[in-house]
Amino acid sequence: AEDRYPSRVSAQAQITDRKDPVVWGRAGDGPLSEAELRFYEDHGYLSFEQLLGQDELEACLAELDFLRRDEGVKDAPEAVVEPGSRELRSVFAIHRRSEVLRRLCAHPKLVAIARQLLGSEVYIHQSRINYKGGFRGKEFYWHSDFETWHVEDGVPSMRMVSCSIGLTPNTPHNGPLMLVPGSQQRYVSCVGETPDDNYRSSLKRQEVGVPDDASLTRLVEEFGIVAPVGPVGSVTFFECNLMHGSNSNITPLPRSNAFIVYNSLENRPVDPFCGLPPRPDFIAERRDFTPAGEFPPGPMRACGEGS
Amino acid sequence: AEDRYPSRVSAQAQITDRKDPVVWGRAGDGPLSEAELRFYEDHGYLSFEQLLGQDELEACLAELDFLRRDEGVKDAPEAVVEPGSRELRSVFAIHRRSEVLRRLCAHPKLVAIARQLLGSEVYIHQSRINYKGGFRGKEFYWHSDFETWHVEDGVPSMRMVSCSIGLTPNTPHNGPLMLVPGSQQRYVSCVGETPDDNYRSSLKRQEVGVPDDASLTRLVEEFGIVAPVGPVGSVTFFECNLMHGSNSNITPLPRSNAFIVYNSLENRPVDPFCGLPPRPDFIAERRDFTPAGEFPPGPMRACGEGS
Repeated sequence: AEDRYPSRVSAQAQITDRKDPVVWGRAGDGPLSEAELRFYEDHGYLSFEQLLGQDELEACLAELDFLRRDEGVKDAPEAVVEPGSRELRSVFAIHRRSEVLRRLCAHPKLVAIARQLLGSEVYIHQSRINYKGGFRGKEFYWHSDFETWHVEDGVPSMRMVSCSIGLTPNTPHNGPLMLVPGSQQRYVSCVGETPDDNYRSSLKRQEVGVPDDASLTRLVEEFGIVAPVGPVGSVTFFECNLMHGSNSNITPLPRSNAFIVYNSLENRPVDPFCGLPPRPDFIAERRDFTPAGEFPPGPMRACGEGS
Repeated sequence: AEDRYPSRVSAQAQITDRKDPVVWGRAGDGPLSEAELRFYEDHGYLSFEQLLGQDELEACLAELDFLRRDEGVKDAPEAVVEPGSRELRSVFAIHRRSEVLRRLCAHPKLVAIARQLLGSEVYIHQSRINYKGGFRGKEFYWHSDFETWHVEDGVPSMRMVSCSIGLTPNTPHNGPLMLVPGSQQRYVSCVGETPDDNYRSSLKRQEVGVPDDASLTRLVEEFGIVAPVGPVGSVTFFECNLMHGSNSNITPLPRSNAFIVYNSLENRPVDPFCGLPPRPDFIAERRDFTPAGEFPPGPMRACGEGS
């Protein structure tokens, strides 16, 4: 397949314009208004203080607690622990892990918005929970998710959307998600070659596929930085190519989010553009294209059976 | 001398009440109004958007640039470089380094406020510039300055005030100073023994003299967190026992501050309460008690002659 967004192939970073629409659907196609679609088109994100029911949220919080306490989870391939400690940092493929989290990822309200933004049926490319502990929570450096999903997973086009759901309050102080609004219009091709099994280290600390200082400076000068904050249950949709990251968290307040990536069924992955074998299915789905709203209940896959 | 604030002597952390006034002077003694003094009494800090002249600020910014470019400065004992790189993190004793910085530290407006808050003549216990670079600027973990100044420098009482002057914009995103307002009323005695020459490592990453997780959680539950932000030149006075810290900075915008600590002339240091030799004079003055407003112009001391 043609590589429309080459990255990690040149010794020079480059900023080019986006080649795909940002909004693929229309106001009549779903719950979002014309004004909301225009905001997303311009800024690359859209936040909602309250979209989910209180009972749904409480079930998710209980599940979160359960996962954090389970020592077995930390040894699963789907789990990522903090460098230098056994603190859980992420758990992947949460839509296959429990009924509560499956229902969250297949939630009709979330799926309807994703379908409208992408103008087609959608499936779950990736799902996960991120824990950023209090006191010693580490930063996530700036990146465009699409850059990795394109280069390492072979997703051809920018027709994906991420949905972040606050499972703790996101305050200005506990290392909230920071976005460069409008940056979805630019593609920063990164310097450096993808190492074998890059995901094993990149999920702990990303070193390849991050923008160089000069490109990031240009983006922030052009677009600025915003950090949507909100209570438990607040939801932010953001475009797959939006530059984002977060600072460390020394406050006592942990910052945890569920994170679901919807991809258009018309944008299924091909062979990774970096020429390496694809990442495991629990990080980047490439076989199960069940429409997200129809993702079936159990049996949940056991740890280790990532595909 | 009696140790009224023991710390690093017990295996158990402890939170006790402050034994000293927060405000030592009165409304009639200086530029601060009754309301400003009450705010400081309650919250332990006081911020001003604009206190210094534009020409004074510009001279300081030029000096800052000069210091950052000077490779010789990085090798001075007064300089602290980032762990793992040669990036300058702090330079101490700036009131002895150049005429511009001396004038800043002896600035009549700053000194008048310090004198009023401390109810006496004041001298400069410490002065420094902190650089937090963009992209990879590291966090400063929570601490009460007084805990260190008492244990390692022998300052007997809480009758000191710090003054932080923004030399770059302090935004919500570039790792601004976070304060626990009201925490000046509590003293958290820390666990752990002071190692020899602790300052050599503690200025890069403080590990002794930091609050334990449970104590910090209690303080934040009681008082919350604020992060005063502002343009270049904004000034924050904060009480020596106020719990504070800052997150990392992944934005392209550096965060630099000048930092001056005024101590009451009636609160001169005695032998350090940890029983070790005192830290160098360029970190904690113990010989030159010239009133801050009268601190004389040059000759500036050369690098290495810290006393």
